[in-house]
Amino acid sequence: MERHFDQELGGLKEHLLRMAGFAEQSVAQALKALVQRDNVLANKVDDDDGILDQLEIEIDDRCIKLLALRQPTATDLRFITMAMKICSELERIGDQAVNIAHRAEELNKEPLLKPLVDIPRMAEHAQGMIHDALDAFVYAKPDVARAVINRDTKVDLLNRQLHRELTSFMIEDPHTITRCLNLMSIAHNLERIADHATNIAEDIVYLYEGRDIRHQNG
Amino acid sequence: MERHFDQELGGLKEHLLRMAGFAEQSVAQALKALVQRDNVLANKVDDDDGILDQLEIEIDDRCIKLLALRQPTATDLRFITMAMKICSELERIGDQAVNIAHRAEELNKEPLLKPLVDIPRMAEHAQGMIHDALDAFVYAKPDVARAVINRDTKVDLLNRQLHRELTSFMIEDPHTITRCLNLMSIAHNLERIADHATNIAEDIVYLYEGRDIRHQNG
Repeated sequence: MERHFDQELGGLKEHLLRMAGFAEQSVAQALKALVQRDNVLANKVDDDDGILDQLEIEIDDRCIKLLALRQPTATDLRFITMAMKICSELERIGDQAVNIAHRAEELNKEPLLKPLVDIPRMAEHAQGMIHDALDAFVYAKPDVARAVINRDTKVDLLNRQLHRELTSFMIEDPHTITRCLNLMSIAHNLERIADHATNIAEDIVYLYEGRDIRHQNG
Repeated sequence: MERHFDQELGGLKEHLLRMAGFAEQSVAQALKALVQRDNVLANKVDDDDGILDQLEIEIDDRCIKLLALRQPTATDLRFITMAMKICSELERIGDQAVNIAHRAEELNKEPLLKPLVDIPRMAEHAQGMIHDALDAFVYAKPDVARAVINRDTKVDLLNRQLHRELTSFMIEDPHTITRCLNLMSIAHNLERIADHATNIAEDIVYLYEGRDIRHQNG
């Protein structure tokens, strides 16, 4: 019985990691669609979002069944409740990737405003945060998760800088307004992806240390 | 023992409703700060956000303890897991209210762009959705929750309309750009509040019908 339960928890972990890999891939593809002006890829991100939605439902269902049938306590209980929280964050990361893909399609209708530098940099940070949060999960390293949380400020800063810069562009040349709005929106989506990665990292600290560290700077 | 557990669940429900009332109040105050150009009130929304953060931590903690000690099944289990989801949505509604309050403070630095009509209308819809989702929760009415979900499209539509209108404003008169950006941001925050209310409504349908109806439109 006990060994079977361990297998079930292992299965849940794999399920969650499959979803995480998928969410990471969606963000990467949305960015590629933007940078390479690739509408086919943008469309793919949109189409594939249903898979993340489905994975969220499956994982939640699996968690609730485990809670009902196994009545876990301590670490196993924390693992299952955090799996529910993490899959919700991953699904929202997927939604942000879809928004980025839609904005990329809009941007592809007009000439490039300027070479993209800041957005790929923001994306690199946000993607690194998701990746490291998941490493912290897989290798049970709450310290790695804590380091992810600290990196959120950097992404916020980049977003604010870009917001100011794009506002100046718009004021100087109103022809750039729609493009600047789309780029602002993408920067905002990336900032939110970093927020979701931060939430995942907080869940992982709770999972492995049993301490709720949310809202400590807030 | 059984009776004591019922009392504990009743206590959890009250805790959640207190949090919900607080989230509703934050949104109302943020809107009032905007419409009445009241920086003191905007500040209050920001200061009070810590209370929602704290309530989220307390409710999650209470839920995890109930899961560990009572090992609930069926409806009670669904109630506890949905309480965890709902309190997370309420906390995010509070974050949106804080964003609105910050933007209101920015807007108060400049003369009024035009009388506010669409934003208060969007706010009314979003607030009504939160309110009805909670009514559905209190009175165990999944039908009311389903009706909330249908109203989300209306808020999305209003947001898109306003986005287009404000873009035209910016193009016609670049002096309005910073104000338009702040108004767009507020409209976006309201649209997200409606999304959170929709998520709560979906959780409530699941709670009372045992059916996961998320992501059915897309």
